[in-house]
Amino acid sequence: MLDKKLQMQLDFMAEMDKMKSVYRRTSLIDLSRTESDAEHSWHFALAAMLLFEYCDLEEVDLNRVIRMALVHDLVEIYAGDTFAYDEAGYNDKEKREKAAADKLFALLPPAQGEEYRSLWEEFDAEETPDALYAAAIDRIQPLLNNFHTEGFTWKNGVTAEQVRKRMSVIKKSSTALHQAAEHMINESIKKGWLKE
Amino acid sequence: MLDKKLQMQLDFMAEMDKMKSVYRRTSLIDLSRTESDAEHSWHFALAAMLLFEYCDLEEVDLNRVIRMALVHDLVEIYAGDTFAYDEAGYNDKEKREKAAADKLFALLPPAQGEEYRSLWEEFDAEETPDALYAAAIDRIQPLLNNFHTEGFTWKNGVTAEQVRKRMSVIKKSSTALHQAAEHMINESIKKGWLKE
Repeated sequence: MLDKKLQMQLDFMAEMDKMKSVYRRTSLIDLSRTESDAEHSWHFALAAMLLFEYCDLEEVDLNRVIRMALVHDLVEIYAGDTFAYDEAGYNDKEKREKAAADKLFALLPPAQGEEYRSLWEEFDAEETPDALYAAAIDRIQPLLNNFHTEGFTWKNGVTAEQVRKRMSVIKKSSTALHQAAEHMINESIKKGWLKE
Repeated sequence: MLDKKLQMQLDFMAEMDKMKSVYRRTSLIDLSRTESDAEHSWHFALAAMLLFEYCDLEEVDLNRVIRMALVHDLVEIYAGDTFAYDEAGYNDKEKREKAAADKLFALLPPAQGEEYRSLWEEFDAEETPDALYAAAIDRIQPLLNNFHTEGFTWKNGVTAEQVRKRMSVIKKSSTALHQAAEHMINESIKKGWLKE
């Protein structure tokens, strides 16, 4: 018999395996399939390390941003992935994710459940410096994948204006990364992958 | 035109997308497919957070362990995944991975290439406290998935002795996690998923 708390955490770890079967609209660059939430979370955490020198906000704690990346999409196991450009889906996103969070974080020992929930809520509110830099990287990653797949996700009628609006939060933490996003958007328009 | 260094880092980020197409022998718990290196790296990083209280080594820096998890398998983009119980594959693993590392880390600005390479080498050597705790979590994750899939990976003739040997490194950083591993191995033998 294992200690009850450890058993609870191992059960949570097994439950989190479901992050590998929540599929996003973003394609792998090799076009073999769309990426899972687990893959997106890893790519986001790695990119937060990789691009940290371009963060203009001095008080950002990269270690917290990485932890945010690891847990920021866990609620999607129960709430599902909401397509970034699905306005109807965004209407009830908050309600669905709140219910999912109540279910999800209750699977953990209380202190840990509160720690992860608070990281997720901070990420979601996009107000603190850590959350603003995290939001920037969370936006850059699918943009990069779309840029390298001739706008795979944008083929469902997404416009340049919608993408620009979604990328605008990057400005709040990084001028250089926002310019990089603008560059990818402009190149995509030129190549005909994204409509003005 | 983007700054040359930033362009190099965005190119690296796109290249790292290939981690989503390096498949391991471990199955997702829902049995829909085997997991990718990107998914394993995410699960490993999350579990390092989740189980840190069971690490017996006082000098472990969890933030460094999480970064190790994120980069520990990058060389497999060029070297491929070596099955944990493939003795022939392990014969040239070191040589293949060294060549892959030379290629991989040269894609980064020098200081960053050295930083990531050094994290990978430290992980691979399994000597420092951070690397020992990282090794424990890297072993527990596929064990847990095998435990929840009736020994999916073990069906190719893997024995309990081989699994015990592979899990023995866990003892060096965590008595509780080593006991949990032993518990899963013993239960798997009882259920007939793993042969003595």
